[in-house]
Amino acid sequence: MDDKAPIDFWFDFSSPYAYLLSERIDDLAARFGRKVRWHPILLGIIFKANGSAPLTLQHAPKAAYSMRDFARSARFMGIPYRHPDKFPLATQNAARAYYWLHGRDCALARRFAHAVFRALFVDNRDVSEPDTVLAIAASVGVDRDELAAAVQSPEIKERLKQEVDTALSIGVFGAPYVVIDGEPFFGADRLPQIERWLTSGGF
Amino acid sequence: MDDKAPIDFWFDFSSPYAYLLSERIDDLAARFGRKVRWHPILLGIIFKANGSAPLTLQHAPKAAYSMRDFARSARFMGIPYRHPDKFPLATQNAARAYYWLHGRDCALARRFAHAVFRALFVDNRDVSEPDTVLAIAASVGVDRDELAAAVQSPEIKERLKQEVDTALSIGVFGAPYVVIDGEPFFGADRLPQIERWLTSGGF
Repeated sequence: MDDKAPIDFWFDFSSPYAYLLSERIDDLAARFGRKVRWHPILLGIIFKANGSAPLTLQHAPKAAYSMRDFARSARFMGIPYRHPDKFPLATQNAARAYYWLHGRDCALARRFAHAVFRALFVDNRDVSEPDTVLAIAASVGVDRDELAAAVQSPEIKERLKQEVDTALSIGVFGAPYVVIDGEPFFGADRLPQIERWLTSGGF
Repeated sequence: MDDKAPIDFWFDFSSPYAYLLSERIDDLAARFGRKVRWHPILLGIIFKANGSAPLTLQHAPKAAYSMRDFARSARFMGIPYRHPDKFPLATQNAARAYYWLHGRDCALARRFAHAVFRALFVDNRDVSEPDTVLAIAASVGVDRDELAAAVQSPEIKERLKQEVDTALSIGVFGAPYVVIDGEPFFGADRLPQIERWLTSGGF
């Protein structure tokens, strides 16, 4: 079934709704013989380019509703959620680590990505800290010193920059943003539409 | 079953997602012995108070995605949709007519509201025009001349103003915005959560 085109999943590790979707998208895709390409990016750059902002830094009624909806949507989906004390936060260290790991071991990179999301949204850890990212990586079996050097390499910094540029060029404006055969879906709440799309090949 | 508190449905007649929810909310509520109070308001005032804007007047990637998502969400829900040529547009005439009708005949007001939404989002009619609103009202059995006078009355203008003020005071920041026993749900895509909430009395 691997001849079907992969699904692209664009996200920032600091997005609550991207975390929720990250807990479901691979299993859903697998049911339809699809793989998912994960693309961590930096929403700060995306938002700046579009003159937008994180939900919790928008006007007060929307920020308050969003806080409530993050937790309720997690309960609705049966996924643990604890809003981080530090939020929003910078995620370039985690994103760079992901791309370096992915170049060596796709499955390990995926385990690392899940561990980062859960560290932030379950265990309230500050994943903007380089040491925290290294500790998370070590917990899934990555050589800490090797990763510490790798994430500082020009190649890895350039890779992340290219991913953000690509995201901007295809119209990604927030996260999670999923593209299936050219069709974009924004938000964890589009999972039912994604499932219908995969079932029917469009609708 | 009428002893359960009614559900409040806040909307602007110009909101595509409010139109989609309007086609489902009464039937869903009725399955749980609930009535729905419809509250047409003016999103222009709500957006101005919060420094926000309609989706299609936000940055280009979000505007483009929204146009695609309006139509796709309608197909997903099995509801006819044709994006209006004039959009967004002013809806105070329709909203005032709704409140006047509601004071005389609740069921007639509901038929009128559905007719306004469908005139705009199926038949591409310009419901910002007072004559169009009167024609829609006449089509569901309202006396056109009586309505034409009523929507100009200070009492009806004040009623709409009060509804907008109430919406602002409880944190309504967009549409559709549904409140069930104090719990707010924003967006037609929250219908599954609304159903779960009604089933479980919270989750």
